[in-house]
Amino acid sequence: MSRWKPDAAGRLTQAAMTLFDRQGYEDTTVAEIAADAGLTKRTFFRYFADKREVLFSGSKELEHRWLEAVAAAPADADPLAAATAGFDTVAELFVERHEFARIRARIIDSNPELQERELIKLQSLASSIKSALVDRGVSHNAAIIAAQAAVTVFHVAFARWVQQDDSAAFRRLMDESLEELRAVTAA
Amino acid sequence: MSRWKPDAAGRLTQAAMTLFDRQGYEDTTVAEIAADAGLTKRTFFRYFADKREVLFSGSKELEHRWLEAVAAAPADADPLAAATAGFDTVAELFVERHEFARIRARIIDSNPELQERELIKLQSLASSIKSALVDRGVSHNAAIIAAQAAVTVFHVAFARWVQQDDSAAFRRLMDESLEELRAVTAA
Repeated sequence: MSRWKPDAAGRLTQAAMTLFDRQGYEDTTVAEIAADAGLTKRTFFRYFADKREVLFSGSKELEHRWLEAVAAAPADADPLAAATAGFDTVAELFVERHEFARIRARIIDSNPELQERELIKLQSLASSIKSALVDRGVSHNAAIIAAQAAVTVFHVAFARWVQQDDSAAFRRLMDESLEELRAVTAA
Repeated sequence: MSRWKPDAAGRLTQAAMTLFDRQGYEDTTVAEIAADAGLTKRTFFRYFADKREVLFSGSKELEHRWLEAVAAAPADADPLAAATAGFDTVAELFVERHEFARIRARIIDSNPELQERELIKLQSLASSIKSALVDRGVSHNAAIIAAQAAVTVFHVAFARWVQQDDSAAFRRLMDESLEELRAVTAA
């Protein structure tokens, strides 16, 4: 976890992830996280609404970057090309967070409430991508289908990425998942 | 709503949907639902764990039917054909429930917690279809992609079906959504 920056949010994140992983998410308190980071609870709440937010605070940046890329895709990009235009920047965002993502995946897999939160974030992402596609002039129907397909590809690739050791593999795994989707639907 | 059967569960469902639609889901109590159905709260709880279950009790039958169809698909069906093999029986199940589905959609659209529940049920359905595909010998990766694609197509078609008047249109709308997915991914 050496890549996290030594600022307060980074220290809190590192302390939280270490505690979640060691003693379980449910059994970890904000007071413990703050203490392990050498900070106060008050400081914790300046950065995170609650301990769950430590796991999900990255989703805003993910969505922001992805939507920027959709908007910047070439005018003649087809709906799926525009929907997946965020893959490069998303992979860049995640490459330094592989260790975080791996621990995070273990924590989320062990907690149904966190799994639900993860699903809702993904659905919210798909909904935003859909709107960005509609803004590009894509029909409502094609936009929903393309956005859902892009998020499914992302999600499948992400699940594979956290299960293996190569932090740089994410971009390639997204391409592979996209090819699998094409193969499955081409039949 | 004349299609609902006059048994206790049917009367409770009809009373609940009428109340949810008229005065809002949040403002409706189990006591009111039971009273309007001419039954006791005790009877209500024999059929439903809570008022939310009135909206989601059909998802088990949906999943059961769908999985049966996946298992019964021809041995040489490709992954997406097997994943979507449930479309016929699912459309049959829903055709008599159009009015219920339309009211239900309005209620769910107005309540974020219910929207989350709906997402989770859909994800659970996709996960079960994935397992059914793996049981047929489909690879894990192709199974995830095909199951997600099938559920996306179902979900998109469902959202269109509840927005229009033709109760028999669901099967056709599923075909149209599937064609849209093929078109989007073929480019």
